[in-house]
Amino acid sequence: MDSSGSDFSAERYFATQPPPPSLDEDIARVRTFIRHQLQAGRKVVLVTSGGTTVPLELNVVRFLDNFSAGTRGATSAEYFLKAGYAVIFMHRQFSLQPFSRHYSHSTHPFLDFLEIDPSGSNNIQITVTPSERDQLLEVLTAYKEVHRLGTMHTLNFVTVNDYLWLLRAVSKELSVLGRNALFYLAAAVSDFFLPRQKMSEHKIQSGKGSLHIEMDQVPKILKPLVDEWTREGFIVSFKLETDPALLIPKARTALETYGHQVVIGNDLHRRKFEVVFVSPREPCSSGKTNDAESTFVETWIRIDLAKDPKKEIEEDIVQELVNRHHSWIQQSKQS
Amino acid sequence: MDSSGSDFSAERYFATQPPPPSLDEDIARVRTFIRHQLQAGRKVVLVTSGGTTVPLELNVVRFLDNFSAGTRGATSAEYFLKAGYAVIFMHRQFSLQPFSRHYSHSTHPFLDFLEIDPSGSNNIQITVTPSERDQLLEVLTAYKEVHRLGTMHTLNFVTVNDYLWLLRAVSKELSVLGRNALFYLAAAVSDFFLPRQKMSEHKIQSGKGSLHIEMDQVPKILKPLVDEWTREGFIVSFKLETDPALLIPKARTALETYGHQVVIGNDLHRRKFEVVFVSPREPCSSGKTNDAESTFVETWIRIDLAKDPKKEIEEDIVQELVNRHHSWIQQSKQS
Repeated sequence: MDSSGSDFSAERYFATQPPPPSLDEDIARVRTFIRHQLQAGRKVVLVTSGGTTVPLELNVVRFLDNFSAGTRGATSAEYFLKAGYAVIFMHRQFSLQPFSRHYSHSTHPFLDFLEIDPSGSNNIQITVTPSERDQLLEVLTAYKEVHRLGTMHTLNFVTVNDYLWLLRAVSKELSVLGRNALFYLAAAVSDFFLPRQKMSEHKIQSGKGSLHIEMDQVPKILKPLVDEWTREGFIVSFKLETDPALLIPKARTALETYGHQVVIGNDLHRRKFEVVFVSPREPCSSGKTNDAESTFVETWIRIDLAKDPKKEIEEDIVQELVNRHHSWIQQSKQS
Repeated sequence: MDSSGSDFSAERYFATQPPPPSLDEDIARVRTFIRHQLQAGRKVVLVTSGGTTVPLELNVVRFLDNFSAGTRGATSAEYFLKAGYAVIFMHRQFSLQPFSRHYSHSTHPFLDFLEIDPSGSNNIQITVTPSERDQLLEVLTAYKEVHRLGTMHTLNFVTVNDYLWLLRAVSKELSVLGRNALFYLAAAVSDFFLPRQKMSEHKIQSGKGSLHIEMDQVPKILKPLVDEWTREGFIVSFKLETDPALLIPKARTALETYGHQVVIGNDLHRRKFEVVFVSPREPCSSGKTNDAESTFVETWIRIDLAKDPKKEIEEDIVQELVNRHHSWIQQSKQS
């Protein structure tokens, strides 16, 4: 292992990297939101979504990014809302969002189905194309209801640094909910970053041959999340792999290392119709063996898009998690 | 200078890097579009917009990206349409687009100003919030008119490789228009790329210390664009810098190297209200001196956002270019 500067513990990370300027303001709003949900007796899920960037320059022109449009997070957030959860939607700026995701400007632009109707009167009307009316009415109704109830709060990040600072602060805020907090960490977080201290101030100039970048490892943030920031929350992390053979071994390793509740494994090319839940066989307190086969359970969720092309796998993922979260809350009441 | 593999000529680039799978199909549509505009006697501008990515893995999870929401390109395209040009809008997938740019899902979501009106009858209506109605009507009217006339054609790219192949093919198609073709190359194109032959097949695994990336230089594509692909087109390129001292020297160097018509220089932090046009003092055929002061002309365009916060600098940029392009066409008729 190359140890050159790659040994950033979470503690060292937060001691040396600057917080985003809007952190205090953002967290004050999150606190108000959580207080409101606590009063209403709602469970709260933190959904993280979209990719994080790693800026290569202080005046950012170039950055490293992780592939993610934010579909998983935005879609799941809608189903959590439908299931009665309040949602903190913490997403990459400009990634997909609940509700508006149905109307991507690239694939389903809303201007295409608004029509100008000169009518008979001198009052020009804007109307909705009849074939789009029912779906729009459904989306719009759900959207307005969420606004009326105040059950969704949206937060933005761009860089992996923004993400790490926000995640720490939001998870500390969520700890007041005890077991009623669910963490759905679907964002595609960079494994590497460039410490502030190593960044070039201005745009890296070309014309100097090839570009060399050397980055450090992002600290394993799940460790302090589980151990310190939010000891009772139900924590779901994601593994995205392109090599199917790595999916389950890596999910198990994550559970062994961090001791949280569920890893959802996705293969890049099958993630729209197949995921696997990997979790410890028994509640963490039960006896552990060294035999991975008996220590972990895999539950596959699959949908058949040929039969039902409108079905979204996130509906089943969220349903399964709502059930598991419910049991998790019950367990605590029994003990 | 580090010469390790950084010497990709355009020719070597296209001989070794694979074309995007949809290239032929995309270009067939561009050809039909150009033929239609030629018949209608319209000038055509190619607007490139948004950043390009450099994938680090064949099964793409991580990539290097260039900062660009695509505001310059999307806004300028609208003003070119208004000025009577036909527009080939070649943009990064999911970057801003003409018309829909006014309704970003993050900053101005359209769901916010649609209302559900149960009315008196049993027919539920979707209506537009009165305060938003006039602007929406204006945008929608322009949008529908462009669709009716068939004056805009949209093309997508994601990677720098997609961009380079498309640019070459589209510019060759545009050469049938002679001097009536304008190139407005506003996309933020990566200076570096990772040759296919060096890419990792699967997701680069972390847990192995720091990440090293070594990239090669993207060939200087303006050279063959000017010299071979489109000899008569009016070509406008952009320079974005974060160090103001580099802006004009680098713009001049570009004009000296490639021999095209205009470089528009922007400083990252001032680009919304100030740009500089750098161009050769006389048409390229006139006598050259070694004195940069007399060889190049700088024209600054500035707007006062304090006085007129709704003014867009792209309106003035496009107006200036329409005038210069007109003169360029006239020159050829005189000679």
